[in-house]
Amino acid sequence: MEYKIPVGISNRHVHLSPEHLEQLFGKGYELTELKPLSQPGQFAAQETVTLVGPKGEIPKVRILGPARGHTQVEISKTDSYKLGVNPPVRDSGDIEGTPGIKIIGPKGEVELDKGVIIASRHIHFHTSDAEKFGVKDGDRVRIRAGGERAVIFENVLCRVSDNYALDCHLDTDEGNAAGLKTGDYVELILVGK
Amino acid sequence: MEYKIPVGISNRHVHLSPEHLEQLFGKGYELTELKPLSQPGQFAAQETVTLVGPKGEIPKVRILGPARGHTQVEISKTDSYKLGVNPPVRDSGDIEGTPGIKIIGPKGEVELDKGVIIASRHIHFHTSDAEKFGVKDGDRVRIRAGGERAVIFENVLCRVSDNYALDCHLDTDEGNAAGLKTGDYVELILVGK
Repeated sequence: MEYKIPVGISNRHVHLSPEHLEQLFGKGYELTELKPLSQPGQFAAQETVTLVGPKGEIPKVRILGPARGHTQVEISKTDSYKLGVNPPVRDSGDIEGTPGIKIIGPKGEVELDKGVIIASRHIHFHTSDAEKFGVKDGDRVRIRAGGERAVIFENVLCRVSDNYALDCHLDTDEGNAAGLKTGDYVELILVGK
Repeated sequence: MEYKIPVGISNRHVHLSPEHLEQLFGKGYELTELKPLSQPGQFAAQETVTLVGPKGEIPKVRILGPARGHTQVEISKTDSYKLGVNPPVRDSGDIEGTPGIKIIGPKGEVELDKGVIIASRHIHFHTSDAEKFGVKDGDRVRIRAGGERAVIFENVLCRVSDNYALDCHLDTDEGNAAGLKTGDYVELILVGK
């Protein structure tokens, strides 16, 4: 069988808590969907914010919706040099001990004390996909991208849920290093298969 | 034996022909060395230029010396989006059919009609290193970077000369995707050894 998985390249983005959404955009504000994402119910919002770090700022950073429990800012290593922050590579949601940053919106600003990460490479599997591919939630696998900038990424986290659609998420540094763009495919490499 | 090779991460830079150096910096101008590079005789110059593409510009782009036959601009895929140019991945010196760009210096500007590339991953081997590692000029090999962002880069060009010092050159996208910085080490993977 073929182990092909579609790729989504994640540009820098922000997930906002309901409280921070109101601080940045005003009381009772609700995000407006720009386009749906690959994961059911998730969307890119029309709204953007500015990230301000010690060394520089990045405007027009997309907000992903809907609002969630904790604010999380996902940037690339390249972005981190521009901003002057030094976030660790983390799985989404694992923000203890990560650096903060200032976020500026049209109606206010938020000084985060934590929440900036470089997102770990990961693959979303619907439960049925995970069975087909033979992986479990929490597994770490390898994927291979072909072409002239061929790369094998190791240590790719598998996330499995009935609410997920099959998609491999890499950041812009990883996508650019491998010559991958959203909609391309990578091959899952299962050791011993 | 161990197949460890030191890494140099190449940020965007420009090699200038003698003619373009004069156009940008004035008649008879000579570059001033800022620091030596890993390859004997090569240096990062104190001088920088601004690159101007259809979509944006990047200031303070380092010139590498000494001046050479043809002007060549080496950028990352990330840079290419900012500038609005679409260069191919090429080996150094192979600039036929590549896009141009505008270069601005303190005394003038140059409108290149070709010369912008994304440099192919490559390893410089002194002839004695090549013998030790069992590679020939022009070979393509794999290298592995360990750590939490572990990556295997395929299709890495081997360049062998008595004038080279052992060094693996990756661009900033590749370095950031793999969590590598200059002075780190990668492992050469020889098929069948």
